Amino acid sequence: MDPVRNAAQLARNASYSLPSVNLETRNKALLRIAEALRTNAEEIVSANRKDLEAARAADISQVLIKRLRYDKDKIDESARSIMSLIEQEDVVGKLLSRTELDNGLVLDKVSSPLGVIGVVFESRPDALVQISCLCLRSGNAVLLKGGTEAKETNEILAHIISEAASFVDERFQNAVQLLSTREQFQELLKHDDLIDLIIPRGSNELVRIIQSSTRIPVLGHAAGVCHTYVDSETDLNMAVRVCYDAKVQYPAVCNAMETLLVHKDVAGEFLPTMAEKFAEAGVTLKGDEEVRRIIDVEEATDDDWSAEYGDMILSIRIVRSIDEAIDHINHYSSQHTDAIVTTNPNTARRFLDLVDSSSVMWNASTRFADGYRYGLGAEVGISTNKTHARGPVGLEGLVIYKYILTGKGHIVAEYSGENARKFTHRRLE
Amino acid sequence: MDPVRNAAQLARNASYSLPSVNLETRNKALLRIAEALRTNAEEIVSANRKDLEAARAADISQVLIKRLRYDKDKIDESARSIMSLIEQEDVVGKLLSRTELDNGLVLDKVSSPLGVIGVVFESRPDALVQISCLCLRSGNAVLLKGGTEAKETNEILAHIISEAASFVDERFQNAVQLLSTREQFQELLKHDDLIDLIIPRGSNELVRIIQSSTRIPVLGHAAGVCHTYVDSETDLNMAVRVCYDAKVQYPAVCNAMETLLVHKDVAGEFLPTMAEKFAEAGVTLKGDEEVRRIIDVEEATDDDWSAEYGDMILSIRIVRSIDEAIDHINHYSSQHTDAIVTTNPNTARRFLDLVDSSSVMWNASTRFADGYRYGLGAEVGISTNKTHARGPVGLEGLVIYKYILTGKGHIVAEYSGENARKFTHRRLE
Repeated sequence: MDPVRNAAQLARNASYSLPSVNLETRNKALLRIAEALRTNAEEIVSANRKDLEAARAADISQVLIKRLRYDKDKIDESARSIMSLIEQEDVVGKLLSRTELDNGLVLDKVSSPLGVIGVVFESRPDALVQISCLCLRSGNAVLLKGGTEAKETNEILAHIISEAASFVDERFQNAVQLLSTREQFQELLKHDDLIDLIIPRGSNELVRIIQSSTRIPVLGHAAGVCHTYVDSETDLNMAVRVCYDAKVQYPAVCNAMETLLVHKDVAGEFLPTMAEKFAEAGVTLKGDEEVRRIIDVEEATDDDWSAEYGDMILSIRIVRSIDEAIDHINHYSSQHTDAIVTTNPNTARRFLDLVDSSSVMWNASTRFADGYRYGLGAEVGISTNKTHARGPVGLEGLVIYKYILTGKGHIVAEYSGENARKFTHRRLE
Repeated sequence: MDPVRNAAQLARNASYSLPSVNLETRNKALLRIAEALRTNAEEIVSANRKDLEAARAADISQVLIKRLRYDKDKIDESARSIMSLIEQEDVVGKLLSRTELDNGLVLDKVSSPLGVIGVVFESRPDALVQISCLCLRSGNAVLLKGGTEAKETNEILAHIISEAASFVDERFQNAVQLLSTREQFQELLKHDDLIDLIIPRGSNELVRIIQSSTRIPVLGHAAGVCHTYVDSETDLNMAVRVCYDAKVQYPAVCNAMETLLVHKDVAGEFLPTMAEKFAEAGVTLKGDEEVRRIIDVEEATDDDWSAEYGDMILSIRIVRSIDEAIDHINHYSSQHTDAIVTTNPNTARRFLDLVDSSSVMWNASTRFADGYRYGLGAEVGISTNKTHARGPVGLEGLVIYKYILTGKGHIVAEYSGENARKFTHRRLE
C-alpha cells in the first residue's frame, strides 16, 4: 500500500475506537499534551531554529518567517489554549432527541465524531497543535500537512502530541498522522472513502485549490467580501464609527469590510465626514459615478465590487433603496458577513432576513464575525458553505450524529398489512 | 445565457426572497397546490397516458411502467401527503441559540433555508410533487429533472405546482424550475455557485454517477449493505424473528440485511433453525467455511461481504467475538444500518458506540431505518454522508442556519488593547 493510503487507513482504523474514549480520558490526553509541550520546549525551539535558518537561507519573506517562529512564549500560549479547550463542553455523545416509536422501541439521536479529518495549513506551527487537539477532543482522528518551511517543527510537534495521547490511552495510537509533502496531501484528497472532512487553514488561494481538487467536503471560505450598508434612516455618528472599525481595525482579515453601500438620501451628509476619517487612517477610496460627485475619489470599476482587497482600500456605491442594497450584496458578497446601520427596525429585519450570508449584522462591525468573539471557544475555521456548518465554526463542526434504535425484538412486518401496529412517535423528555 | 444556467439563476434569484415568506403563506401555497392537483386531475391523467403509451411503444419493462403510472388514486394520495406536510412543524426561522456577547450586543443562531436544491429522480411522477412541496415548505427554490419516460406528466405537474404557488404569492414565481433532458441536468451539476444541494432519488447507480460528477454536496446513499450480528448471549427466538424480518420483509430496499454475522458459540444451535426459516421463504444462503460445516449452503467469496443483493440472497459469516463483528461491519458496511441481537447490555453498548453507521440498532430489524418509521414526517432521503445530515433525513435536512448579530454601534476596537472591554458570552433563555 502506498504510504499516504496507509497513513489514511491507520487514521481511519483509529477513528473506529475513538468514539468509545470517554471525556475524562480525552481531557487527560490533552493535559498530557500540554505538559509535554512545556517539558520538551527546548527540543521544539531547536527544531524550529533549523526551520528558521533554512527559511532565511531560502530568502523567505519576513512575514512568513515571523509566522514560522515558534518560541517558548508561543509554546506556552499553545499549552494554555489546550487547557482552555479542556474546559469546553463535550460535543460527543450528546442526546439530541429521544422518540418513542412504539412501546419498548426507542430512537435516540446522538452526536458522534465525524471520523477522520484532513487538515492542511501554512507556516504557523501553533495551528498544528490547536487543530490536533480540537480533533482529539471531539473524538476524531486527524491527518496533518503543514508548510514545508515548518517541516522540522511540525515533525517534533506531531510526534510529541501522538506520544503524549497514546501514553494516556492506546486508542489514540495512530489517531494523529503527519504527511510531509504537498504531493502527499494532493494524494490524500483522492481517498474520499477514508477521509470525512478537509479543513484548509491558510490563504484563500489554498482553499480554492483544495475545493477544486477533491470530492471530500471542505470546511472553509475562499473569500471574505464583506459589506456595510448605511441606510437612509440612520445615526450618522454610529455609521461612521461602525464603518471605520469594519475597514480600519484589521484590514487584512476576512471579516473586514470591502464595500460600503450608502443610501442616496444620506450620502451627501455622510460621505464627506466618512471620507475624512478614512483619509486620516490612510484608506484609499474608490467610488461609483454618484459617489464621485460628492467626494473626490478614484473610479470603481465592476471588478471592484467583487474584490477582496485585504488592505486599506474600500469601494463605495450609492443605492436607491434597501432592496437595491440587498440585491447588490446577494450578487457580489462572498456570503461571509454583511452589516446594516439603521435606526428603523423594519428595514433592519428585511436586511437580516434577506441577505444570504453566514453572518448578518445590525448596527455592529463586521469584524465581530469570529469564533472567539461569538463565544464558541476555539475556532475550527469560518465556513461559507451552505451545508453542515456555516459561519464561525467551533468544536460542533467536527461532529455529526447517529441514530440509535433500541427494541425488544421489534420487526417491521407487524406495522404493515391488516391489524398493523401503529407507531406512537412520542417525543420523550 | 444558456438555458440551464438561466434556469438556475432564476431559481437562485427566487431563493433570495423565499426566506421572507412566512409559514402561513407557505402553507397556503401548499394547500393551493393540493387543490390544483385534484382540479386538474383529468389533464394530468391524460398527459400521463401519453407517457404510458410512449413507454409501451418503446417496450419499457412492466416494473417501470407501473412506477410511471399516475392515476386519480395516486393524485389523491399526493394531495393528501401535501396536506400532512402542512401539519409539520416549521423548520425555518427557528431560534437555535441566543447569546449575549456584551451589554446590548446579542447573537442569534437562526435556522434558514439552504437556497437552491437540485433534484433528479427516476420514473415516479409522485416524487416530483413530493420533493417540490418539501422544498417550498422549507423556503427553498428547486430545480427538477424527472425521468424522460415521464416527460409529459412532469411538465404538467411542474406547471401546476408553479402556477398554484405563484398565485398565492408572487415570490414563488421561478421557485420551481423543470429541466427536460439528462444533458441539462449534467450541465446543472457544474453550477456550484448557484446550487446548494443535489438530491438524487433513484437507483444506487444514479447516486454514484452524480456523486462523481459534481462539486455540489449530494445528499443520498449509494449503497445499503446492512448487517445483523447475533451475539453469543442472545434470545435465539428473537434473533430468528429479527433476522427473518430484516431479510425477507422487503428484500429490494436499502435497509434490508445483506450479511448475517453469528457468534461461533451459538452458530451450531442458531443456524439450522434460521436456515430452515429462510429456506421456506426462498432465501438463497451463502456462507464462509465454518458456516458450511454447520449448514449446507453455497460458498461465500470475498465479493459477497460487500455485495448489496437487493434480493432474496444472504451471506453468513461466523465471528469469534463482538469486536470481530464490529471490525467486519466497519470494514464492509456501507454505513447505512447495522443491528445487534443480544441480551447483554454492555455488549450492545459497545456495538452501538463503535459501529460507524448512520443507524445502529439493538434487538430490532434493520428495516426500521426510514423517515416515516422514525417519525420525521416526509422523507427527503436516507444519507450515508458524514457531514450535514445522516440517516433518514426529513425537512431539517433542507435547512442550515445563519448568525444574526444585533448591536448598538458596537465596534471590535473596544475589545482589544489596554482597557479592553470583556465579552460576557452569556447564554440567554
